[in-house]
Amino acid sequence: MMGKLYGIGLGPGDPGLVTLKGFRILQVADVIFAPKSEKGEVGIARSILRQILPEKECLELAFPMVRDLRQLEQHWGEAADIVAAKLAQGLTAAFVTLGDPLLYSTYNYLLEALRRRNAHISVETVPGITSFSAAAALANLPLVEGDERLALLPAAAGPEAIAQALKAFDTVVLMKIGSRLPQVRRLMLSLDQAADAVFVSRAGLEGEAVVRDISQVQDDHLGYLSVVILRRRKEGR
Amino acid sequence: MMGKLYGIGLGPGDPGLVTLKGFRILQVADVIFAPKSEKGEVGIARSILRQILPEKECLELAFPMVRDLRQLEQHWGEAADIVAAKLAQGLTAAFVTLGDPLLYSTYNYLLEALRRRNAHISVETVPGITSFSAAAALANLPLVEGDERLALLPAAAGPEAIAQALKAFDTVVLMKIGSRLPQVRRLMLSLDQAADAVFVSRAGLEGEAVVRDISQVQDDHLGYLSVVILRRRKEGR
Repeated sequence: MMGKLYGIGLGPGDPGLVTLKGFRILQVADVIFAPKSEKGEVGIARSILRQILPEKECLELAFPMVRDLRQLEQHWGEAADIVAAKLAQGLTAAFVTLGDPLLYSTYNYLLEALRRRNAHISVETVPGITSFSAAAALANLPLVEGDERLALLPAAAGPEAIAQALKAFDTVVLMKIGSRLPQVRRLMLSLDQAADAVFVSRAGLEGEAVVRDISQVQDDHLGYLSVVILRRRKEGR
Repeated sequence: MMGKLYGIGLGPGDPGLVTLKGFRILQVADVIFAPKSEKGEVGIARSILRQILPEKECLELAFPMVRDLRQLEQHWGEAADIVAAKLAQGLTAAFVTLGDPLLYSTYNYLLEALRRRNAHISVETVPGITSFSAAAALANLPLVEGDERLALLPAAAGPEAIAQALKAFDTVVLMKIGSRLPQVRRLMLSLDQAADAVFVSRAGLEGEAVVRDISQVQDDHLGYLSVVILRRRKEGR
């Protein structure tokens, strides 16, 4: 009997944002994997697990942040082999990610590597709270209402694409800010007349910051684990 | 002592997608409100509550789907008055919504009406799983990876805006489909060469459907509570 793989979104940091279903699966999983790749992410996924299930062990899988596609595929392949080996033993495995597993997450690469191996395994994905939903909640800020439109961009899209998106979309969410925080701040300042902006860093974690006046975003704010929500200004708002 | 209002996202339908935090707050809330507005929504929010907290009562607040802004504001104002009265008694109130409270939800209107009344109340929003995260999870379909971009549009945006979005975005999510399902299906068929599409209806509910071949989307599928995810085709994918 082959085991089953669950991809489980832990939400962006607050252990309370794990879903009931995700929690129940983690309780009974034979083995829990967490990605080791992104700066800081391991610590946080592990820390969430430790808070909700202190007795459970968690194995790290390496997903290094290298640019070379062949090297990357090799790493993903090795991770897929480790997971597939556990499933071949008939075990139930959970792979946890921050946020939602299918939204900018290493889980996508794991799934792809498993597919490429033609491993006929049973996979179930349990969605997670996205960092932008958590950020909007902390600011009590509507993301979209009525017939509004939302664009989700990585900061790497660049200032031009972001300003362009603000013309066609009511809300623009910037993710994967990382070391681009200074550029993002400059852009936010330049858009000051066109949009209301909220910067949220480390939602639900120690050092959480919700900053509405962008000039107050400091250099010591972490770009990693931060989100910017831009709301286009409208007449009468 | 004024009470506190919690806006709680229940997720799209599966009671297991309620967060641990949302569940704990609902357990101890003095009063739980649910919106009565959208077709079918009450039944579902109530049914989720009944499954996770069978002993809890839930009050309905009317948010009718009328077009007249003055009428709407009157209804939201009345709902806000009812909530504010409970808070004035020092009670803890929870307002539940399907999906995420700040993403296409009546909670946005309640918050606005409370602000307009200048009611200095304490509000905390607890994010919820969005219907598109749940839909992607059911299909094990990546939403965005790497430097990709995602656009979230209501079906009302129309075929032209949707086709346009597919040029600049890797993933286009269509929400609020409702009675526009036939048009959306026609559009999906016409985009067949440009994008892979998944239609997900009633995620986590009775009658759930995940349809990858769009020509198989039937007229008896509900447009309400359905999501379409379009992924732009790429070379080598």
